[in-house]
Amino acid sequence: MAQGALPGFRDFYPPEYADRAFIMRAWREVARRYGFAEYDGPPLEPLDLYTRKSGEEIVGQLYNFTDKGGREVALRPEMTPTFARMVASRANALRKPVRWFSIPQLFRYERQQKGRLREHFQLNVDLVGEADVTADAEVLACAVQMLREFGLGPTEFVARVSDRDLWRARFVRQGVAESDLPRLFAIVDKMERTPPEVTVKKLESLSISTNIIDAIFAFARPMTIDEFLDGFGGGSTMLESTKRLHRYAGYLYNLGVYDFVRIDTRIVRGLAYYTGIVFELFDALGEFRAIAGGGRYDNLLKASGGPDLPAVGFGMGDVVLGDLLRSRGYMTVDTPGVDVWIAYADDQSFAGALKVAADIRELGISVEYSLNRPQLARQLKVAGSAGARYVIIVSPDDWRSGKVTFRNMLLGLQGTMVHTALLQELASRVHLGDRLRQDLWFLGDGNPAG
Amino acid sequence: MAQGALPGFRDFYPPEYADRAFIMRAWREVARRYGFAEYDGPPLEPLDLYTRKSGEEIVGQLYNFTDKGGREVALRPEMTPTFARMVASRANALRKPVRWFSIPQLFRYERQQKGRLREHFQLNVDLVGEADVTADAEVLACAVQMLREFGLGPTEFVARVSDRDLWRARFVRQGVAESDLPRLFAIVDKMERTPPEVTVKKLESLSISTNIIDAIFAFARPMTIDEFLDGFGGGSTMLESTKRLHRYAGYLYNLGVYDFVRIDTRIVRGLAYYTGIVFELFDALGEFRAIAGGGRYDNLLKASGGPDLPAVGFGMGDVVLGDLLRSRGYMTVDTPGVDVWIAYADDQSFAGALKVAADIRELGISVEYSLNRPQLARQLKVAGSAGARYVIIVSPDDWRSGKVTFRNMLLGLQGTMVHTALLQELASRVHLGDRLRQDLWFLGDGNPAG
Repeated sequence: MAQGALPGFRDFYPPEYADRAFIMRAWREVARRYGFAEYDGPPLEPLDLYTRKSGEEIVGQLYNFTDKGGREVALRPEMTPTFARMVASRANALRKPVRWFSIPQLFRYERQQKGRLREHFQLNVDLVGEADVTADAEVLACAVQMLREFGLGPTEFVARVSDRDLWRARFVRQGVAESDLPRLFAIVDKMERTPPEVTVKKLESLSISTNIIDAIFAFARPMTIDEFLDGFGGGSTMLESTKRLHRYAGYLYNLGVYDFVRIDTRIVRGLAYYTGIVFELFDALGEFRAIAGGGRYDNLLKASGGPDLPAVGFGMGDVVLGDLLRSRGYMTVDTPGVDVWIAYADDQSFAGALKVAADIRELGISVEYSLNRPQLARQLKVAGSAGARYVIIVSPDDWRSGKVTFRNMLLGLQGTMVHTALLQELASRVHLGDRLRQDLWFLGDGNPAG
Repeated sequence: MAQGALPGFRDFYPPEYADRAFIMRAWREVARRYGFAEYDGPPLEPLDLYTRKSGEEIVGQLYNFTDKGGREVALRPEMTPTFARMVASRANALRKPVRWFSIPQLFRYERQQKGRLREHFQLNVDLVGEADVTADAEVLACAVQMLREFGLGPTEFVARVSDRDLWRARFVRQGVAESDLPRLFAIVDKMERTPPEVTVKKLESLSISTNIIDAIFAFARPMTIDEFLDGFGGGSTMLESTKRLHRYAGYLYNLGVYDFVRIDTRIVRGLAYYTGIVFELFDALGEFRAIAGGGRYDNLLKASGGPDLPAVGFGMGDVVLGDLLRSRGYMTVDTPGVDVWIAYADDQSFAGALKVAADIRELGISVEYSLNRPQLARQLKVAGSAGARYVIIVSPDDWRSGKVTFRNMLLGLQGTMVHTALLQELASRVHLGDRLRQDLWFLGDGNPAG
């Protein structure tokens, strides 16, 4: 039993699970607010769902096998194929736009590296059925809000936006061949981490003139959308894409997220299926890998054999985000611990303690008590180390007159009161599912605990 | 793309996902109230984690394969081995008793039958480190409360409790050989679905006398614990187990769940690892398979190579429970639909609509709007079919004076008011994450909507 989880797989002990739940709760809360409905699919899918989209070469990264019925299957490495399949099979019945999100656990057999995981949870938000840039703005606003929800502000992360059409519009009629664009994008994709002179050499190898290379360097750097439009919005060849970008910027402004957004045409997103505006969210200090990425993929659903519907979406994993939140002090997870510990002065009071436990739990308050009936002093010590906020002590004399002692562990104050009156007080102060508020300290007569 | 999910795997479209979330929310709420903390492990584990506990014959039911690193792995068919592994590796550091729960998705390659699933979600609640029957009572109370939480009452489900020790205590010194107990239990396990005369024949084949057979039939039927103690509690050979049962009944009574419990010694639970009291929850009409099952397994952790700690726990799947809740009218899932739909009288008002959307979402209220800018009448129609509870209409004249129109869709009433005042009203009426309450209808001047 020394053996642990498989390499690259995580055990979520309660503290780690609480972090995970903290992230997922925020994701669900924001998605709900943006009108996205949650769905899920199977973690195991037919293998060809992935090879059809990504080619046979993806198999090297999959957890795939032949099941006992002879089917070629794989643990899902991404959610989009499942999403496409589900939308496709009910395409006519679904209200458009389809606004769905999911938080699947995804699996990839990554080559083993220190700390490299083989599973993660990934928020997937997708909006299907709207081709206009209004949908792009709505989805980016939702992605930005996902991070704002944790407290992260515009000095802490940035959404970097791009659109391959801007490249095509600006450079194709100025000496870059359309057929060279894939190679140009491959160079651009690496620009940020490549010395300029190396990038120049690479561009020269595409027979791009010095003039154009200068223009590319001026074009391929981060700036606000307004700066970009000022600098590059004038050319008539860019009219369509800049008009679209201009509207996009306006919507982002109205949706309250403009300050988080920069144009950065170096973002070309490796995935071949994007067809319009793409974006990635990064921490502003550049310490971490991308927090999220997404964009428009108008051809994918049809190419997957589904309906011909435009779509835009993004994915956000739990690992980079969790690291960022911890590093910036935003992983503010509630300390564990029950609300109320029920203690009993002696064996004879145990039955009363159980009744009190049942009564308090009925109010939606979390309750624990010692099962092995130790001395009262020991119970109180255990209650403290278990993080209990309040302790109710049942003792024979009090209990005969229907009373209990209520102790605030934080303040060390306690008082004795009628049990039914305490229940009424608690009921009026607690919402089902909420944590007990800290203002309960004045219950009882407020004497310091002995 | 006509192809769907693998046989036995479920797609959770938003309505089905809402049912699943409804069940899980209740599970989590009750577990929290009982002081259990959530954990999770990997869905993929080393194969020998399962073969070590259940023998090689379990492999026929597993989704197992060799991963790209040559490891024999399997999708988890149950949670207990993962739980045992996790507890074992931190056994000394964990506060005892360990009170944990989890809601893993589990996978079994079941032979294909109509409607037979190959995955399900299973609540696992376990309490480790307490040998006394107080722990058994606490865990059963928690299991019962899981169903009560949905509204199910004592006429709708029953917890059937048993303890093999009662059999041993009553019958071993009266003519049934200790070595015959496994065969006796195999017969007893089938008694409920077997004609009495067949059971008699089977018992006779164990050389059990007619007297004892009569006693077995009197013993092996459902009754209240008090009835059982009255009828069978007197014999000195049963003293230990009846004393334990008597205390157990008292704790269940104090915890408020006695009315849900029957002794039924025919429950022997197939799993070999139970060592004390076992229980199963059934619907009272007997229409469904067991809703939950569990009991004490004091030897399992040690036998799995873990610490020598007593343990008690149960599992409850989402499938039978979901069928039961639907059948009894307790699957009372909120109808989907956003709280507020933002409409705009014309293109010119679209920017204002986006601002309003952002403002309202900031309050924690869910908001949607038409992305493709159709006519207002069309927007209102879409809002209705999307299930929006309220509509805010932004029109150019109102918006210039900072006003919007607020419409209650249910009542068809509407009024025009200052946007910032509306925000204040909404903020005072909504809790973050809550659904907007229906008493918003009197906002504005309450004129019937045109």
